[in-house]
Amino acid sequence: MSTLPEHVRIRDVSLRDGLQIEDPIPLSAKLELLAAIAATGVQEMEATAFVSPSKVPALADAPELAAHLQEYRDSHGIEFSALVASPNGAKRAIAAGLSSIEYVVSAADGHSRANVGRTSAEATALIPEIIAIAHDSGATVEVIVATAWDCPFDGPTPHQRVVDVLSTAVQHDVDRLAIADTIGTTTPRRVTETVEAVSPLIGDIPLGAHFHNTRGAGLASAYAAVSAGVTRLDASVGGLGGCPFAPGASGNIATEDLVYLLRDSGIGVDVDLPAAIDAAAVAQRLVGHDLPSSLLRAGDRILG
Amino acid sequence: MSTLPEHVRIRDVSLRDGLQIEDPIPLSAKLELLAAIAATGVQEMEATAFVSPSKVPALADAPELAAHLQEYRDSHGIEFSALVASPNGAKRAIAAGLSSIEYVVSAADGHSRANVGRTSAEATALIPEIIAIAHDSGATVEVIVATAWDCPFDGPTPHQRVVDVLSTAVQHDVDRLAIADTIGTTTPRRVTETVEAVSPLIGDIPLGAHFHNTRGAGLASAYAAVSAGVTRLDASVGGLGGCPFAPGASGNIATEDLVYLLRDSGIGVDVDLPAAIDAAAVAQRLVGHDLPSSLLRAGDRILG
Repeated sequence: MSTLPEHVRIRDVSLRDGLQIEDPIPLSAKLELLAAIAATGVQEMEATAFVSPSKVPALADAPELAAHLQEYRDSHGIEFSALVASPNGAKRAIAAGLSSIEYVVSAADGHSRANVGRTSAEATALIPEIIAIAHDSGATVEVIVATAWDCPFDGPTPHQRVVDVLSTAVQHDVDRLAIADTIGTTTPRRVTETVEAVSPLIGDIPLGAHFHNTRGAGLASAYAAVSAGVTRLDASVGGLGGCPFAPGASGNIATEDLVYLLRDSGIGVDVDLPAAIDAAAVAQRLVGHDLPSSLLRAGDRILG
Repeated sequence: MSTLPEHVRIRDVSLRDGLQIEDPIPLSAKLELLAAIAATGVQEMEATAFVSPSKVPALADAPELAAHLQEYRDSHGIEFSALVASPNGAKRAIAAGLSSIEYVVSAADGHSRANVGRTSAEATALIPEIIAIAHDSGATVEVIVATAWDCPFDGPTPHQRVVDVLSTAVQHDVDRLAIADTIGTTTPRRVTETVEAVSPLIGDIPLGAHFHNTRGAGLASAYAAVSAGVTRLDASVGGLGGCPFAPGASGNIATEDLVYLLRDSGIGVDVDLPAAIDAAAVAQRLVGHDLPSSLLRAGDRILG
């Protein structure tokens, strides 16, 4: 049996990845959800994205939302990040007060072109500029490798593409890295193989992983990642966040389901389970449809 | 990384565990579901249970259903089993033509009393008699340890109780064994620990595992079991089969979700994935409500 870490840092991505493909909800509703998630004890949140408002209308209020984050930095110590897809997005995020930038690069050309109109190599070539913009302003950068296992257009992603993106980021002093199963197709064995293969390349740079539960294997993949040494995982309350390539399917792995599994494995987390279930219920009410979370239906373990 | 097996035998339990807490459906509907599941290529099915018709009305037609199994033995080579909870149930199953008996023993007293009106030790004490009944008729017996991790009444199950049930079965020449997460609370680390702990005790006797996805960790637990050497897993098409202690929660792990994960891990299975998704759709139509299967919504992996 692998050695499990003592603690896993969960980053809640409800407000960005979770809401991204939902019909836009008002800023007041986002602030209600933010408050509920902050109450879970989570220490990192992906707050929004600075991308094209016409392409992602649900996150068009990024600057307005960003103006509300300082109170949670002060009161809860939460670190907020925002996703960007270009140098201009990085500048906008920093101007709005974000000090932690996620730059997402699709390892597969098909998804990269559909998402940002660039090949993967072209998107990778922007890494140095984005890191420079952030570091010049005292901000940090996480490079996230999207479609790290499969692309909805190109099929399985060649492993070398993942290595190319990670290597470029490492060479330019990236602060954090992550690998993302953007369309929810990977499974634990492939996760183990990828994490073990890239670990020597990235050295001491923190590596996170991002899974969707689209085909039911999200938690199994998360546990495989943790067993292979990953100590940072993304999740959303309720499992918010669908997949544009699989309408009606599950979204991100649910924060509360992940907390249940990790806690039951003796791994420490920052997130309180009952508070996460409460936040999932808030999310479900605000988006107005059932969310796929298991704990939201089943509740915590029944103990006699 | 653990060594994964080359092949995992999936037993479809849709007709028994899947339908057990559903409103009863007509025999004709069960036969339609049986035909759809047989078309998946699965080689073992839990067909029904010979238990009190008043306690489990959904399976009151066990003898009538059993009369239809021979054609699938002949045409598809499927091995059918039936669950029993007493020596009398074993006799009824054998009289109905079943040659494979599952005797379920709850390792926890609370669940055992609620389920069969006996303590776990009293239920364990019936193992020799049930094995004798079966073997005298040329039938085989699998002893299934229910509530192997947690009981809805007693909390965590003492590991020694699981060992006691397994040991008694081994001493009396049981043919197969299984450990069951009856209420869907276990997680991969505990699964690994239990499988590793009981493996020396059971030697060469085939060991299966049975998981519910009630708290989202069913597939993660199944993968942990397989990684620890288990090569027999129960599943139901669509994830049929709720939990009486968590109304509205998910049921058994879904056959098609399990097949997707195992196939993607390079592990051979008897079950064809598109046929399993078709059978899940049949199950959903017959029970008349949404089933929790992921693949039923997301479909197979999208390959460009």
